[in-house]
Amino acid sequence: MAPPRVAGVGTTHFGQLPERTARDLFAEAGLAALEDAGVPPGDVETLFYGNFMGELAEHQGHQAPLMAEAVGIRAPATRFESACASAGMAVREAVRNVRSGDADVVLVGGAERMTNMGTAGATEGLSIAADDLYEIRAGMTFPGAYALMARAYFEEFGGTREQLAAIAVKNHDNALVNEYAQFQRSITVEQALDAPMVAEPLGLFDACPFTDGASALVLVSEAYADREGLEAPVGIVGTGQGGDNMALQDRNYLARTPATERAAVTAFEDAGLGPGDVDAVEVHDCFTIAEVLALEALGFFDYGEGIDAAADGVTTRDGRLPVNVSGGLKAKGHPVGATGAAQLVDMTKLLEGRHPRSDDVTPEVGLAHNAGGTVASAVVHLLEVVA
Amino acid sequence: MAPPRVAGVGTTHFGQLPERTARDLFAEAGLAALEDAGVPPGDVETLFYGNFMGELAEHQGHQAPLMAEAVGIRAPATRFESACASAGMAVREAVRNVRSGDADVVLVGGAERMTNMGTAGATEGLSIAADDLYEIRAGMTFPGAYALMARAYFEEFGGTREQLAAIAVKNHDNALVNEYAQFQRSITVEQALDAPMVAEPLGLFDACPFTDGASALVLVSEAYADREGLEAPVGIVGTGQGGDNMALQDRNYLARTPATERAAVTAFEDAGLGPGDVDAVEVHDCFTIAEVLALEALGFFDYGEGIDAAADGVTTRDGRLPVNVSGGLKAKGHPVGATGAAQLVDMTKLLEGRHPRSDDVTPEVGLAHNAGGTVASAVVHLLEVVA
Repeated sequence: MAPPRVAGVGTTHFGQLPERTARDLFAEAGLAALEDAGVPPGDVETLFYGNFMGELAEHQGHQAPLMAEAVGIRAPATRFESACASAGMAVREAVRNVRSGDADVVLVGGAERMTNMGTAGATEGLSIAADDLYEIRAGMTFPGAYALMARAYFEEFGGTREQLAAIAVKNHDNALVNEYAQFQRSITVEQALDAPMVAEPLGLFDACPFTDGASALVLVSEAYADREGLEAPVGIVGTGQGGDNMALQDRNYLARTPATERAAVTAFEDAGLGPGDVDAVEVHDCFTIAEVLALEALGFFDYGEGIDAAADGVTTRDGRLPVNVSGGLKAKGHPVGATGAAQLVDMTKLLEGRHPRSDDVTPEVGLAHNAGGTVASAVVHLLEVVA
Repeated sequence: MAPPRVAGVGTTHFGQLPERTARDLFAEAGLAALEDAGVPPGDVETLFYGNFMGELAEHQGHQAPLMAEAVGIRAPATRFESACASAGMAVREAVRNVRSGDADVVLVGGAERMTNMGTAGATEGLSIAADDLYEIRAGMTFPGAYALMARAYFEEFGGTREQLAAIAVKNHDNALVNEYAQFQRSITVEQALDAPMVAEPLGLFDACPFTDGASALVLVSEAYADREGLEAPVGIVGTGQGGDNMALQDRNYLARTPATERAAVTAFEDAGLGPGDVDAVEVHDCFTIAEVLALEALGFFDYGEGIDAAADGVTTRDGRLPVNVSGGLKAKGHPVGATGAAQLVDMTKLLEGRHPRSDDVTPEVGLAHNAGGTVASAVVHLLEVVA
């Protein structure tokens, strides 16, 4: 099966845009992707759309047909919701639809409006991604949940707040030239360590921000790309998904994320590739510890070894495996329902050599990892320059 | 491509079950479907799950992994939300996954908890399926929206409240022996006409009730069915989806539902069948007028002719084209995110000759039609006895 090609990508600025609706954001990203692709909107056969909490943020469910209307297409439109992995799931089904021959042209992406809810409102909203009955009603928040995972990791393998801070420093540095990023300023390890504690051992700079934004991709079949003479050198050559029990209390062990492990095994098998083939990675770093857990679960580091990677310069731009060259969720921002698509936007640009960081990072194979909740859902995609 | 087979079906009782969570409901339906199929939970490769407004009803998003856990499977789990067509969309992607060879065994279904919200709360919650900015803030509710569609239809083609009442009477009569139905009592045209007006010309008995419930199906590949020696004679031989502008004000014409037309054309083409091949139909009768609009858009009646169908006995059990033999949304009930799966549960039983109405209705080919909002989304499936 010929891999679906990324014909074009588009994104809004990520940041505090409280006055903009999801439909407004997605129209910008979707139209940018279509223009980048040189694909007329009328050729789009399906829209797959990720959104997490439009019901709470703007009293709007059933967003998929609204988004189709916003970009001026009359195609069937389907919304996916898997918390922070919503757009990743949309991409996965888009890939499978193009690959199976069900569609030649799919517009896929996501949008999230968050900052209009305020900090307390957004925190409360995000909590619906965890188990309401057994976690949220007991007072758990996501910083608290990831702090538990960090403490379990530290207890099992060792680890320091300095090592986590190095991840934040790296991702902020990566975002400096990303014009779409929420934060384009560098931070130091000292600043991160001195920042207010959120949930021990995670401080303010260990957490990603609240973000409004949208991202989109146009996926096409090889046949369509050839027929229309499109420049679409990047193929999505592997897709994988994994699941886990929802509540932390229902898992045996908190220092690993089995859903990511399962998604990675599936995606690598699907692509006929292994971790050693990958040149650059975008992982779901909603918290610094999440980057560590992801890199180990994806097979790039042994368990207990991922914590050193940023501090040791292995995952910096000049390292062996550049991670979150986009700035990651930490610095690029995390508009929840858009993030899984945004990761592929940056990775596609890197693979095509047209990313602001293309002078430093020139991958042939890239991996994108998107996770939902405390990694009860995970999806992994492998991208490769195929033409 | 061999059509996916329905290996088993399961459903909860539909009704007022305010103390039961979506996970509790789906566990019952999902496990019933697996037991009916004789498929071990460990064989399930993917869960596709429809839910509409868990965010509002029980402060719970990210429900798909919760539902996998509830039925005891560790498979990747994906939630679909397309308002009242949520489960229909889940079925559509399940069909495509099995057909393309991506999976041999998929558990697909949906659940909705509504009555714990109370009448006002559920009405308010349902409104997020319409355009919040341009419809809901202007005071629109779903009964009001469908009343506008009914008035447009009456103005264009003529029609009476008596004709609509005949649809409600038919569907209540059909549900009398359906042990899962919310209403198992007959009504008369006079009762319907005398009932309180909700939104002219629609009275109380023109509307479906608020319902809690869940439904599920096990879809398997032909190869898996053969290998495991499963009794799975019913194949899903066609799938189609259509979209439309979200808000009524953004459509040219309210007396037709183009999203259903598009879904039907696609599904019939996919199956190599036409309306004349269909022996029984389940349509999305959230309001009586919706049954009329659906039957015309599906190609079973000329425009303006569907309004007579129930009163003339064409769509009753002894008629040429039995419609909503299950009782439909009107009498079986409408747990929003489960409805699209529930329709296939009843249709499968009819095709297999094991439905409470199998003495009266013995189809070889059946159609199920699921719609979201004021039919901004629609999905159509064709089922046939293939083995």
